[in-house]
Amino acid sequence: MQGTTRTVISVDLTKSARSQHVLHNRLHPDLLPVASVHPGEVFRVECVDFSGGQIANNDSAEDVLNVDLNQAHYLSGPIQVEGAEPGDYLEVEILEIQLLQGHEWGFTGILDVKNGGGFLYDYFPRAAKAIWDIEGIYASSRHIPGVRFAGLIHPGYLGTAPSQELLNKWNHREAELFATDPDRIPALAFLPDEKGSFLGALENNPAVARKIVGEAARSLPPRENGGNCDIKNLSRGSRVWLPVYVPGAKLSVGDLHFSQGDGEIAFCGGIEIAGAITLKTKLVKGGMYLHGNLRNPIFMPGPVEPRFSRYITFQGISVDEQGIQHHLDATLSYKQAALNCIDYFKRFGYTGEQVYLLLSSCPCEGRINAIVDVPNACCSISIPTEIIDFDVTPKEGGHLVKITTNCPLQAVLAKL
Amino acid sequence: MQGTTRTVISVDLTKSARSQHVLHNRLHPDLLPVASVHPGEVFRVECVDFSGGQIANNDSAEDVLNVDLNQAHYLSGPIQVEGAEPGDYLEVEILEIQLLQGHEWGFTGILDVKNGGGFLYDYFPRAAKAIWDIEGIYASSRHIPGVRFAGLIHPGYLGTAPSQELLNKWNHREAELFATDPDRIPALAFLPDEKGSFLGALENNPAVARKIVGEAARSLPPRENGGNCDIKNLSRGSRVWLPVYVPGAKLSVGDLHFSQGDGEIAFCGGIEIAGAITLKTKLVKGGMYLHGNLRNPIFMPGPVEPRFSRYITFQGISVDEQGIQHHLDATLSYKQAALNCIDYFKRFGYTGEQVYLLLSSCPCEGRINAIVDVPNACCSISIPTEIIDFDVTPKEGGHLVKITTNCPLQAVLAKL
Amino acid sequence: MQGTTRTVISVDLTKSARSQHVLHNRLHPDLLPVASVHPGEVFRVECVDFSGGQIANNDSAEDVLNVDLNQAHYLSGPIQVEGAEPGDYLEVEILEIQLLQGHEWGFTGILDVKNGGGFLYDYFPRAAKAIWDIEGIYASSRHIPGVRFAGLIHPGYLGTAPSQELLNKWNHREAELFATDPDRIPALAFLPDEKGSFLGALENNPAVARKIVGEAARSLPPRENGGNCDIKNLSRGSRVWLPVYVPGAKLSVGDLHFSQGDGEIAFCGGIEIAGAITLKTKLVKGGMYLHGNLRNPIFMPGPVEPRFSRYITFQGISVDEQGIQHHLDATLSYKQAALNCIDYFKRFGYTGEQVYLLLSSCPCEGRINAIVDVPNACCSISIPTEIIDFDVTPKEGGHLVKITTNCPLQAVLAKL
Amino acid sequence: MQGTTRTVISVDLTKSARSQHVLHNRLHPDLLPVASVHPGEVFRVECVDFSGGQIANNDSAEDVLNVDLNQAHYLSGPIQVEGAEPGDYLEVEILEIQLLQGHEWGFTGILDVKNGGGFLYDYFPRAAKAIWDIEGIYASSRHIPGVRFAGLIHPGYLGTAPSQELLNKWNHREAELFATDPDRIPALAFLPDEKGSFLGALENNPAVARKIVGEAARSLPPRENGGNCDIKNLSRGSRVWLPVYVPGAKLSVGDLHFSQGDGEIAFCGGIEIAGAITLKTKLVKGGMYLHGNLRNPIFMPGPVEPRFSRYITFQGISVDEQGIQHHLDATLSYKQAALNCIDYFKRFGYTGEQVYLLLSSCPCEGRINAIVDVPNACCSISIPTEIIDFDVTPKEGGHLVKITTNCPLQAVLAKL
Repeated sequence: MQGTTRTVISVDLTKSARSQHVLHNRLHPDLLPVASVHPGEVFRVECVDFSGGQIANNDSAEDVLNVDLNQAHYLSGPIQVEGAEPGDYLEVEILEIQLLQGHEWGFTGILDVKNGGGFLYDYFPRAAKAIWDIEGIYASSRHIPGVRFAGLIHPGYLGTAPSQELLNKWNHREAELFATDPDRIPALAFLPDEKGSFLGALENNPAVARKIVGEAARSLPPRENGGNCDIKNLSRGSRVWLPVYVPGAKLSVGDLHFSQGDGEIAFCGGIEIAGAITLKTKLVKGGMYLHGNLRNPIFMPGPVEPRFSRYITFQGISVDEQGIQHHLDATLSYKQAALNCIDYFKRFGYTGEQVYLLLSSCPCEGRINAIVDVPNACCSISIPTEIIDFDVTPKEGGHLVKITTNCPLQAVLAKL
Repeated sequence: MQGTTRTVISVDLTKSARSQHVLHNRLHPDLLPVASVHPGEVFRVECVDFSGGQIANNDSAEDVLNVDLNQAHYLSGPIQVEGAEPGDYLEVEILEIQLLQGHEWGFTGILDVKNGGGFLYDYFPRAAKAIWDIEGIYASSRHIPGVRFAGLIHPGYLGTAPSQELLNKWNHREAELFATDPDRIPALAFLPDEKGSFLGALENNPAVARKIVGEAARSLPPRENGGNCDIKNLSRGSRVWLPVYVPGAKLSVGDLHFSQGDGEIAFCGGIEIAGAITLKTKLVKGGMYLHGNLRNPIFMPGPVEPRFSRYITFQGISVDEQGIQHHLDATLSYKQAALNCIDYFKRFGYTGEQVYLLLSSCPCEGRINAIVDVPNACCSISIPTEIIDFDVTPKEGGHLVKITTNCPLQAVLAKL
Repeated sequence: MQGTTRTVISVDLTKSARSQHVLHNRLHPDLLPVASVHPGEVFRVECVDFSGGQIANNDSAEDVLNVDLNQAHYLSGPIQVEGAEPGDYLEVEILEIQLLQGHEWGFTGILDVKNGGGFLYDYFPRAAKAIWDIEGIYASSRHIPGVRFAGLIHPGYLGTAPSQELLNKWNHREAELFATDPDRIPALAFLPDEKGSFLGALENNPAVARKIVGEAARSLPPRENGGNCDIKNLSRGSRVWLPVYVPGAKLSVGDLHFSQGDGEIAFCGGIEIAGAITLKTKLVKGGMYLHGNLRNPIFMPGPVEPRFSRYITFQGISVDEQGIQHHLDATLSYKQAALNCIDYFKRFGYTGEQVYLLLSSCPCEGRINAIVDVPNACCSISIPTEIIDFDVTPKEGGHLVKITTNCPLQAVLAKL
Repeated sequence: MQGTTRTVISVDLTKSARSQHVLHNRLHPDLLPVASVHPGEVFRVECVDFSGGQIANNDSAEDVLNVDLNQAHYLSGPIQVEGAEPGDYLEVEILEIQLLQGHEWGFTGILDVKNGGGFLYDYFPRAAKAIWDIEGIYASSRHIPGVRFAGLIHPGYLGTAPSQELLNKWNHREAELFATDPDRIPALAFLPDEKGSFLGALENNPAVARKIVGEAARSLPPRENGGNCDIKNLSRGSRVWLPVYVPGAKLSVGDLHFSQGDGEIAFCGGIEIAGAITLKTKLVKGGMYLHGNLRNPIFMPGPVEPRFSRYITFQGISVDEQGIQHHLDATLSYKQAALNCIDYFKRFGYTGEQVYLLLSSCPCEGRINAIVDVPNACCSISIPTEIIDFDVTPKEGGHLVKITTNCPLQAVLAKL
């Protein structure tokens, strides 16, 4: 009578992602479940990194430059939950997330503008990469000296399968947006695309696969099913309530992050890892009707997030860099906060890319502080000062430059 | 040799705000300082509430409906800081904020749409009001039963005076925005307006007052000088670095909030109070040049914020209520998160207005979780569950209605 | 209908404590209430410092050397709570504690060994004193350079009156202990003593006062009524359940501390202040019977304690300085932890007295880590590193001395 | 260039502890290292539970009754740290602690009084046992219904080897104490004893083993080398500075706890587990001389302890259950606090044993609040209310019994 947690999905990091039918990178109600669990069962799911192993632990960003985003995200599942029916809430408790033994590292990348870019693509259009060495709960990087922090490990992606009706709705609305500026770089949306697609167990059934792949949704945006929410606080001990749209719920999970900053601003932007996640489910029958007219998941964060007590906070308002006033634009305000932070940290000797990667991956807080003081929204980004080796408080005489330029990050800026 | 903190500005709540020349409600470099302090000195500033006493402790929202926003905000100051020069950073440490004895109450109002409205003006266009009884560190309301929380007391407004050049820039850019839709209700911006203006000590000099009032900026938005940032975490023990644009810095402070939720979504939306704030300043000479190309203040939050460990979190994405997909729109995503939360809490028996007022005033966290997963931004709003008297966890069978309708908030919805 | 908190006890710091009949310094069921409150009422009580003004804000410790402990503690009250009966629990909520305006300072003293001494009287037998300047939520001392911290303000004393039976029990058991070594210095217990006594309102009735003063208990130890618990975490927002032994409960409060370390090891050892405390009561009828066979109060700490995330911790075990092994002696282990800490901090240039005063007054944590690993108890003392201006981490090459000796504490060591 | 953490000690839970020479259960400078690491290296050490597998995952406490304490603790090591010399501080960073896959359970036992007993052996002399099911970060027990909590995982034992001189000192002082009452049950100390001893790699060399086993120290108490400190806060991310007494330091580690309450009062009292710990070391050369005259290790807790914000706290003073007054006896005060807590929780339907086991294993805080208020020490024990499924606040009318008696803990009380 020993305690034993069942591993329901195993991956092999020495093999290609596309050879492992427990993975998939498109969303569709007809995907085949590759595992089944019953409510109350504790189970463990192994995951590859979101790119399926396209990025290596080295000092070149060529792989980030050339990453095939059409293959993102390689997710584990779908997992069938016995008894789940449309209209239920699927409560998922995240019990543990760990690295796979022997793979104690991760990466953060600035995507090239041709490849989607990041939040600040107009400032940092070129691909860059930082590798993180993970020592137990801590991450540090040879590419971003002077920082070390405890991870806030979480799944970037956790979601149920859409119904056909919901899928149609997604495809319709995203195509409409895309059509407003189809040539935009970076693209306004990632529409269904057969290229790079991988339908997991359905790959054994080419007829069906061919039929649905043209409408299978991409996994990049968060949607009504949860999905790629990239919420850093969905860490160990959290519970999330996901709407169920198809029988069995068909849960998918992946895109594990050892850490992430609010916004995940560099796009491939958490500390991307392969790992294992331990889950437990519970059904709230009819929960979607019982709990109000909600359009998105609910969650309750867990009790073991890293504990910080001191932050340095940068503000931004809805005035762009050309001095144009916008109306209550939180996206723009957050961009200004991030740019202010980057300008500040460059004074310590960092390059802009280093700070950008840091904001994307460290446990910084991104807040909407005020959204009514027309015409300016006030947003802020707060970095825990305890993760930085030196004192960053503004001070008389300014700071001595602390970070020397012989850091190998210069090497990881991909050549265009 | 007793410890004594000097009160540099006193107010009299029994008198009209407009009769007290230590107050002002417009921003201009030529306003006359009403007090002077030297760096390092600990000093105390008394403040009226932002409206200057227009809102009363009663069960009617008529006063919120009719509030004259042209008079907002009645700020204390300007305070001259000896030795401050343009280009410096003025470090302001917020040492303490307290209610004025005998005035242990505050209010939260939903502004009527004609009066600026709130973040959700399209759902809740009518004025409403909740009164908060303040018992030491705790607030509770006879208009929103079932909640009680520790205040995160802070100044909604803390800022330096603009230079003439900066003032011109503000007026120009805000007028340009306003001109894009001058008839919009609610208005896109609040431009300079003589009506309701109050220039403090300058009111004794009508000639000068008349000359500048047409260009004196309104205090509503946060800007490069700090100002009405409405950042709830700027509480006791915080330090903020404000750019100095005029000799003596000319610090203004007011719009004290006993508490506020991120976003301050109801607009007159914190727990608005009169009170006293204790400050200390320090100069970082030339700080605006030493610390990077920043466009906004920096701050470090203090160590005594209320401590919570459990939250319930609602997400939102950039799809509007009509199902239209928008591109990485954090403002819209935050709106969706707030609407989801309101729908959820209505199941307990609350009216929408009650939840709206609660989100605006309780210490809820508003986050930009992901801002790169095109086309959806993911934003969230998190309420500490410890402030609510009953269990709000989603559960099998749904919740029993907890809040009965005999709460007097119905009465405070102003008649249109 | 303004919010107003009633002040039920006022003190005048310009007058002697002994002239103010709202104070008293002995415990007895027959003391006369000086105020009355009803359950649910929010009320404010002003307090003098525990010594009644014997200690001044200056650089000499002569006053600590000569302090008349027979007068301690000057408590405010008793306060009658309407409806309270023996057997009830009196729930007291601590809503707020503030300094009295114009008295923003406090003191910490090492009592001379003849006067009770402190926890380390064998190492530091002489009186010493540190004055703390209080700037809003922060304290710093010209006598202990290099530290500054947010206060964890609390009442050292909060208790109900004993019944005659309970009083007799106290006097009996403490006399028995005292009798085991009546000549010990410092004394084993403080027995009833007419000298220095002050019975508040009863002083107007010399006949009754004379009758009871010989049996009125001293206020120094915590007992079954709560009393001088000196629990630093009984701060703002806390609720405490005190047993009621006499009709009306007869609540006394005083010995306010702006801050204190666990153990309050220097004896007059928190940051001793005059101030005002705001309270609210509630009755749990028959609570002493309903909730088990408890011999002491229960409490729930509040939500606004200063938040720290980094500590340096010193351990101690039950082996004394002569190398003698004791059996699971937590008192001795805690002493060893404190001595280890003092030895460590002396390396930064502090005197032992400075560290002793700091441990007694700063928000350090004192823990019983293990009490079963015979023969050693393991206790520890943890100092938040954020309160110290410099890095205290053990490091290669040791630390540079940071604190110079021209600090005036040398002067405050009283001459013997 | 993948990240890989080296496992330097592996255990096999299917084999007896005594067959694995990487373990040992006595302390002596001449034990043979079984692994070697260099400073800066990240390494992983597997550990059996302290008893070496004597306790099973079932519903009988017979195994706790009969546990052979002479075999405790089976520790992993010693591990040689290259370059460590007597006089150095060995900085050990605890990077991660995890359960061994497939062994997701632990146990807490009340030791029988003949076997050492626990802190409350006079109240609970008989053996009892609770089994904990571990689901990721959470533990719950079929033997203690109504509670669930996040683990504060830590090594109960972490220490260097003593020098011969230090070993002699230990043996001398503990023998002296033992001799004061050699027949006491439970024993005053555990002296060297060949019975049950296991010297690891030295077992291959019977001649040497026989020579030293008579003086090899037992591992039960914490001492100058660290050792069995049982400090719950020595969790992930902590750094501890251990004095080095022999070349290579000879680090031992074991007695892993998934969780523990301050005091570990039931003796075999944390949630005892087998697991793996990941460590990194650093040398502070000559640290024992550089950092003061310390007699015990120093540590800095890590940043990912479970975060709680609400506690219920029970106090105790130095008056024993017979009403006898003791002098500043923190051990007795802590006992009273624990007894008060047990009495309180029995009102919910728990047995005393259940509460005793809970206090020993859950993340409760044990504090020395005041140690100077003669004659009473004030100690307290604080339980996070969030770990309990129901409301434990004292209330009007008392509590309903929540816990029914059909819980199987009755069965696990061993028959005497």
